[in-house]
Amino acid sequence: MFADLVAGTVWEDVAAQEHEAKRSILNFFATALGSAHDPAVTVALKTLLPFSGAATSAIIGRSERLDAMGAAFVNAISANLLDFDDTHLDTIIHPAAPVAAPVLALAQARGYLGRDVLLAFTLGVEVECRIGNAVSPGHYARGWHITSTCGVFGAAAACAKLLGLSAEQISNAIGIAASQSAGIVENLPSAAKNVSVGNAARNGLFTALLASDGYSASPRAIEGPLGWARAMGDVPDLVKLTDGLGKSWEIAKNTYKPYPAGIVFHSVIDACFKLRNRLGGRIEDIADITVQGSALLLARGDRPVHNERDARVSIHHCVACALLLGAAGVIEFSEATVVRPDIISLRQKVKAVLDASQPDGAARVTIHLASGETLEEIVMAAKGSLADPLTDRDIEAKLREGARLGGTDWDTERVIDAVWNLDKLTDVSDLMGMHG
Amino acid sequence: MFADLVAGTVWEDVAAQEHEAKRSILNFFATALGSAHDPAVTVALKTLLPFSGAATSAIIGRSERLDAMGAAFVNAISANLLDFDDTHLDTIIHPAAPVAAPVLALAQARGYLGRDVLLAFTLGVEVECRIGNAVSPGHYARGWHITSTCGVFGAAAACAKLLGLSAEQISNAIGIAASQSAGIVENLPSAAKNVSVGNAARNGLFTALLASDGYSASPRAIEGPLGWARAMGDVPDLVKLTDGLGKSWEIAKNTYKPYPAGIVFHSVIDACFKLRNRLGGRIEDIADITVQGSALLLARGDRPVHNERDARVSIHHCVACALLLGAAGVIEFSEATVVRPDIISLRQKVKAVLDASQPDGAARVTIHLASGETLEEIVMAAKGSLADPLTDRDIEAKLREGARLGGTDWDTERVIDAVWNLDKLTDVSDLMGMHG
Repeated sequence: MFADLVAGTVWEDVAAQEHEAKRSILNFFATALGSAHDPAVTVALKTLLPFSGAATSAIIGRSERLDAMGAAFVNAISANLLDFDDTHLDTIIHPAAPVAAPVLALAQARGYLGRDVLLAFTLGVEVECRIGNAVSPGHYARGWHITSTCGVFGAAAACAKLLGLSAEQISNAIGIAASQSAGIVENLPSAAKNVSVGNAARNGLFTALLASDGYSASPRAIEGPLGWARAMGDVPDLVKLTDGLGKSWEIAKNTYKPYPAGIVFHSVIDACFKLRNRLGGRIEDIADITVQGSALLLARGDRPVHNERDARVSIHHCVACALLLGAAGVIEFSEATVVRPDIISLRQKVKAVLDASQPDGAARVTIHLASGETLEEIVMAAKGSLADPLTDRDIEAKLREGARLGGTDWDTERVIDAVWNLDKLTDVSDLMGMHG
Repeated sequence: MFADLVAGTVWEDVAAQEHEAKRSILNFFATALGSAHDPAVTVALKTLLPFSGAATSAIIGRSERLDAMGAAFVNAISANLLDFDDTHLDTIIHPAAPVAAPVLALAQARGYLGRDVLLAFTLGVEVECRIGNAVSPGHYARGWHITSTCGVFGAAAACAKLLGLSAEQISNAIGIAASQSAGIVENLPSAAKNVSVGNAARNGLFTALLASDGYSASPRAIEGPLGWARAMGDVPDLVKLTDGLGKSWEIAKNTYKPYPAGIVFHSVIDACFKLRNRLGGRIEDIADITVQGSALLLARGDRPVHNERDARVSIHHCVACALLLGAAGVIEFSEATVVRPDIISLRQKVKAVLDASQPDGAARVTIHLASGETLEEIVMAAKGSLADPLTDRDIEAKLREGARLGGTDWDTERVIDAVWNLDKLTDVSDLMGMHG
């Protein structure tokens, strides 16, 4: 059903989405550069090196290369590793990692234009997020890691577009992707999460190549009686696949995180920043802190903190960092910060309480001081949300900070410049070969 | 939960399963050699060739090689292409393709002993089929291609064993496999089916390599609240995972098909062979033919025949070939036979009728002759079933016939000899490099 859209859409049709596509790709590089030297990325690269064909494609932030399928796998991992990448709020898909990684790897291998990359990426995100819309929220609740399971469709569609496939071949590519859709939530707090995200990217490209070489799929692989939507979504809303197709674009709903924590905690952090300004250093005087929010906020974040992974999804840790350190970046969610005695002490003063009247994404934070004074802030739309989006400069700063902390030798200013000029790039290697 | 079994089992523990493991692998070669030059295999090989590392591992029945992951992918496809491979009747898993393909490819690449291969294969089939048991029959009914979805667990366990991983690493490998389990029934009548079967083999090996290099998974990736069993099986029976583990062996329940048709049609074919003998050439006198069987038989096989794929799952076509040609081999299910006017004419005389009193796997066939005479045969256990298994000589003959029709130049007698002596082989290349 997406084949005609993907085959028929030309650059002019998505020109209005160009800026948001570039912002998504800039944010993709910010997180991929930040995690490029993480051990999980290094292991994946080491495991794949003996299984690579001609090494055509860069590993972002590093000097090694792999073939396009291997590079797609590794770059999707680094971009998504900390869940610090982009978020499509209706589905909680991180759209860019599984789509941008194979598109850029393939474009570098075969010399496609930057404009082709932007067009393919925009279409891939469209297919990925529309399929996610059709099965949300039941799909994730059943245990499916939606970035992985829907990412493979976006990767397949995007790579099929980049390869210039016919509508029939594109239909086959998207259908073949249905037989590769995988990834479970139970594995999220482990390295196994990386495998399903990397596979979504790698297998989407593989699928497009197979379709190009003549492989077929059921024309009803998604919506048929024994198809993907029924197997993986309990009550899919198939209208969402096509309603307004080609008129509204999902990339326009993409958001970028200022903090490497679960997105529902961002309003908690913002509220605490405001409170910190009002406290004027009186941290020692805090008696207790109450965070009120929706059932979603509590379900995701009311938990003990043992390690970095817990910290990124802990209301208590977000509050402690924001109030004590006035920051909530990569450092604040690192192991070193997690075990700080002053942070532990402050975490213990935090209590999470349900307020069913609050919408998802909002938070009320109330501080009682030992003096009896009470301070309260409510944030309805966190920084980074659609209502208060990161600016272009914010995303650039996030990329520079990520690159600095990640220890890459890639030239960040050249990356930033190349992304903003991606529509004019005649060689994607200008973007994908940026070590200094 | 399988990690201790896989880590702790030694050759002596499974010596009683040795013969059935060899029969399974012999049957695997029979079907892989038969389909080695099918266009679907050639396309997969062509697509993967530019993405292969050092070409360590044979493509069965051909002269090309790929790295072990690529060879695992392609060999699983050829073994399973016609669904003529082995069948674990409780789950309808084809156990060998996703497990033997990566084990043999890895063993050839790294020089493991034949005995290591047999042990790893037996354990892989155990894990694969037990996980299938726990989610059957709801899993397949929901739309999951169980050979693909459970095959990846068997491949992961088998490759982890071959690599000599620790129990903890094996647990991680099986858990990572849960994030790669994929494949939908809607895609079965298309080449997309091959992709999920090939991925099960390839990704199982990949998973074991990642676990070997330090990748982890949730310890409850299968049985946890947001784990594989709940996501992919509506009401999993987790007791079946471990009940009698290490005492009874699933490989002992493996069966091998004499005919490249859906297994529920085999009793129909056998009944027709008996009727053909009684007819003594009076085909022209047949007025009509009635096939009676369970709801499963009718659901799978009461359909119009347009092509080879339909024919392999058609009651009508099975009857026509068995009665008119006295055979039901690869030729009888080929396009040339499907369009024969005499076969079409006989197909049209066949009627399928529900007999709810018949168990699955049984069939009653009744022929009315123009003279008014009635002939009837009932078959309760088809040739190839556990009650009437193929003999070793039958499987050898199936391999020779497959190789002949598939046009391979591999030396079939050497393959047969090497499989029967697999426990003594010090170099698996003796089995995997058999072209003449």
